[in-house]
Amino acid sequence: MRLLEERIQKDGEIIGNDIVKVDMFLNHQIDVELLCEIGKEFKRLFADRPVNKIVTIEASGIGIACITAQYFSVPVVFAKKGNHRNVGNDIYTGEVFSFTKGVTTQIGISRKYISPDDHILIIDDFLANGGAAKGLIGIIEQAGATVEGIGIVIEKGFQSGGKELREMGYNLKSLAVINSIDEGKIIFG
Amino acid sequence: MRLLEERIQKDGEIIGNDIVKVDMFLNHQIDVELLCEIGKEFKRLFADRPVNKIVTIEASGIGIACITAQYFSVPVVFAKKGNHRNVGNDIYTGEVFSFTKGVTTQIGISRKYISPDDHILIIDDFLANGGAAKGLIGIIEQAGATVEGIGIVIEKGFQSGGKELREMGYNLKSLAVINSIDEGKIIFG
Repeated sequence: MRLLEERIQKDGEIIGNDIVKVDMFLNHQIDVELLCEIGKEFKRLFADRPVNKIVTIEASGIGIACITAQYFSVPVVFAKKGNHRNVGNDIYTGEVFSFTKGVTTQIGISRKYISPDDHILIIDDFLANGGAAKGLIGIIEQAGATVEGIGIVIEKGFQSGGKELREMGYNLKSLAVINSIDEGKIIFG
Repeated sequence: MRLLEERIQKDGEIIGNDIVKVDMFLNHQIDVELLCEIGKEFKRLFADRPVNKIVTIEASGIGIACITAQYFSVPVVFAKKGNHRNVGNDIYTGEVFSFTKGVTTQIGISRKYISPDDHILIIDDFLANGGAAKGLIGIIEQAGATVEGIGIVIEKGFQSGGKELREMGYNLKSLAVINSIDEGKIIFG
């Protein structure tokens, strides 16, 4: 998605050779106009799938998921992190290992909001090693629901998550794939 | 907002005499169609204010803020909870005491995303004792920006936050005010 690549190039903050921060427009300050274009693009890419629910993970996935959900006319369910005090006990849980932070986080979704009838599109801001996506897939498959697709805003093509998920047969589409970061320049795939 | 009151009455889960969980449509599963109506209502209520940015707090405020921001054509900035490893050090911070959870949480917003020129609408899902709103106001006023208004989806009228914020002079509007919960029935104000 050209508009997104240009924005990452312009406003992304490069740290070392493997981190691009997009705090300026995606996950701290949010450019909602850009999010609308992102949502429309996800709709175009997954138009042939019978999606009836979008699932994401707090916190930075929620805005993207809600804006995208408008174009599908479906609800959003977001996985909560941590001990789920306010979710109740009747939940599906999974674990997400973050290489960036070096920690494992518990995630959970109430059993009330995913059922075997659901056809789910997973939406998230970043895909690197795929920890969050795999955690969400685990929860969705525990519930007997179908993963219709995985929509990612920015994939780090030089990390293994995307390759693994595609090899597992998931219909994964990323709007921008960063192949490498070289001397302060981002090379897209 | 009648549509919202009806939905709370229908799908809200009452716990004891002071908790209404709206996990079904607002803060775990999200009815995005309802969120659009909420967003339009906030736009109507704050149409006379020169809002150029919406500020909220992760996680459940983000979806509401993003959908609402579309009707104002402005960006969203959300305060992050916790130790802000990914935000950098150059942040405004505040504290939020949650009576529900009995804990104090640090919140922060990068200095890059709030400036003295900003005219901010605060948006959040719940207002009870006002901890989150006061934490956000503290950050916005540290930055020298103007709080143009506070838009709340559900206010618990039997707790003190709303009264205090109105007495402090803030332009606070709540779409549904719960005055009391009596034997499983919710009484709106």
